[in-house]
Amino acid sequence: MTVRPVSKSDEEAFLGREIESDEESGSQLLGSSLAATAAAAAMDSVSAVNVRFFTKLYVLTQLLGVLSVVLIGVWIAQFHKGFAWQSNPAVEFNWHPLLMVLGLVFLYANGALMFRGFRTERKMKLKLLHAGFQAAALIVSSVGLKAVFDSHNLKDPPAPNMYSLHSWIGLSAVILFCCQWVMGLVTFLIPGLRSSLRAAYLPVHRFFGLAIFVTALAAALTGLTEKALWSLSSSYSSFVPEGILINVIGLTLIIFGGFVVYLAANPQFQRRTSEEEILLTDTVME
Amino acid sequence: MTVRPVSKSDEEAFLGREIESDEESGSQLLGSSLAATAAAAAMDSVSAVNVRFFTKLYVLTQLLGVLSVVLIGVWIAQFHKGFAWQSNPAVEFNWHPLLMVLGLVFLYANGALMFRGFRTERKMKLKLLHAGFQAAALIVSSVGLKAVFDSHNLKDPPAPNMYSLHSWIGLSAVILFCCQWVMGLVTFLIPGLRSSLRAAYLPVHRFFGLAIFVTALAAALTGLTEKALWSLSSSYSSFVPEGILINVIGLTLIIFGGFVVYLAANPQFQRRTSEEEILLTDTVME
Repeated sequence: MTVRPVSKSDEEAFLGREIESDEESGSQLLGSSLAATAAAAAMDSVSAVNVRFFTKLYVLTQLLGVLSVVLIGVWIAQFHKGFAWQSNPAVEFNWHPLLMVLGLVFLYANGALMFRGFRTERKMKLKLLHAGFQAAALIVSSVGLKAVFDSHNLKDPPAPNMYSLHSWIGLSAVILFCCQWVMGLVTFLIPGLRSSLRAAYLPVHRFFGLAIFVTALAAALTGLTEKALWSLSSSYSSFVPEGILINVIGLTLIIFGGFVVYLAANPQFQRRTSEEEILLTDTVME
Repeated sequence: MTVRPVSKSDEEAFLGREIESDEESGSQLLGSSLAATAAAAAMDSVSAVNVRFFTKLYVLTQLLGVLSVVLIGVWIAQFHKGFAWQSNPAVEFNWHPLLMVLGLVFLYANGALMFRGFRTERKMKLKLLHAGFQAAALIVSSVGLKAVFDSHNLKDPPAPNMYSLHSWIGLSAVILFCCQWVMGLVTFLIPGLRSSLRAAYLPVHRFFGLAIFVTALAAALTGLTEKALWSLSSSYSSFVPEGILINVIGLTLIIFGGFVVYLAANPQFQRRTSEEEILLTDTVME
């Protein structure tokens, strides 16, 4: 999280070659020792181990993410009469947990991991995919917010909004996410900003990206707790199936979140720009 | 989170001098360029900026931590009849939120930041302080657990334990914390383990250290939500003072957590072992 750290992993040190970490500093060329060419084959094999390890974790993470969303669908379908829109505000509520977890947790995480999961793609394509996934995450979770506000406002008599800790945490996460998305667009996608400014903002964008994700998870967990207490009341303490399902959803979300943060924060999984790409992008693209 | 990364910050690159990041690899000596001696004074002034920035954030973090604990004390004293022990199990419960936040959040965070806040101390002293703070955190939170189990078991009739998502998250955090403490003791404090193994385990210890902390915060937030819903029921939605206080405690904990993770995870705040210390510790100490 330093400003543009040139992180020098063991494998690079061992190979006597520095590869620039993918930190928006496209204009800087690399020190490349005499051993570089000779070591290229060896390096590919060392990287391959990291990539295989990454791929296993990445697939496991995706499975956990899909599992979270599916379990929420099962929970709603099994115990809460499925889905409706404004004709039935009480059932319209049910979109809220599904869409918030789909948008603010699952799609958001996939957007965040874009630069890790598709490291061989061109940087500009990855930026567009990242921004696109996060836009989808924002739209899906906005519909999820609409569902909960509707379910309060269209009730007879209307129920108050925004009084609970869950609502404060969740709305903070969504507002921060909007700011983060706009800042990312202005800084990294709209052309013209100096690459030193981009490099200075990148660690801030990364930190808040993960902070918003963890805050969204906190909102999910407090939301599950609210729903369990309102719906189950004292039967929650009798280990009824819905209660256990809610707890399992919560733990699945936490484990999913742990993997996502691990994959996103671990420098060994960072995309690295090759010398060739830097030369190319400096003269041809971006 | 690579194995023993030699993180090379801008200031060090600028000064043409590498300082080993404090990563348990005491046996490795440092490349030190000819410019090192000449640059020493300049370096001190660059580091001083980082240290001043760190100190400001660190003080702010401590204030937020103290504020969280004080607010919980105020909440209990004002709205829940203060504190008692087994003679009054319902009031004994009140120790639970206070001691869990004091132990698993505030003391734990202080233990985690030990190597950041007191960077000029000798490494062995810091290790003992770190282990000591985390032992205190574990003891305080164990008493906090005792309080909640007593409040259920000594009730007439007894209430069930461990049915809620909050309890599953919280107990997971405490069990992981116990494992983490024992692993830390065996790996870093008991002499004899090869320094390559210590170096390999350090990023794992760091990752789980922060993961346990964030899980403890999730437990705190779901716990606050439970207590708000059980105690306030439908009056929560009328923005009663206790409800707002609970929400403010929750947000304070989240902001505190954000600062702690930022200070702990940011490589620019890592303690760095000086060449002199490495020479000394290799020959004299540890």
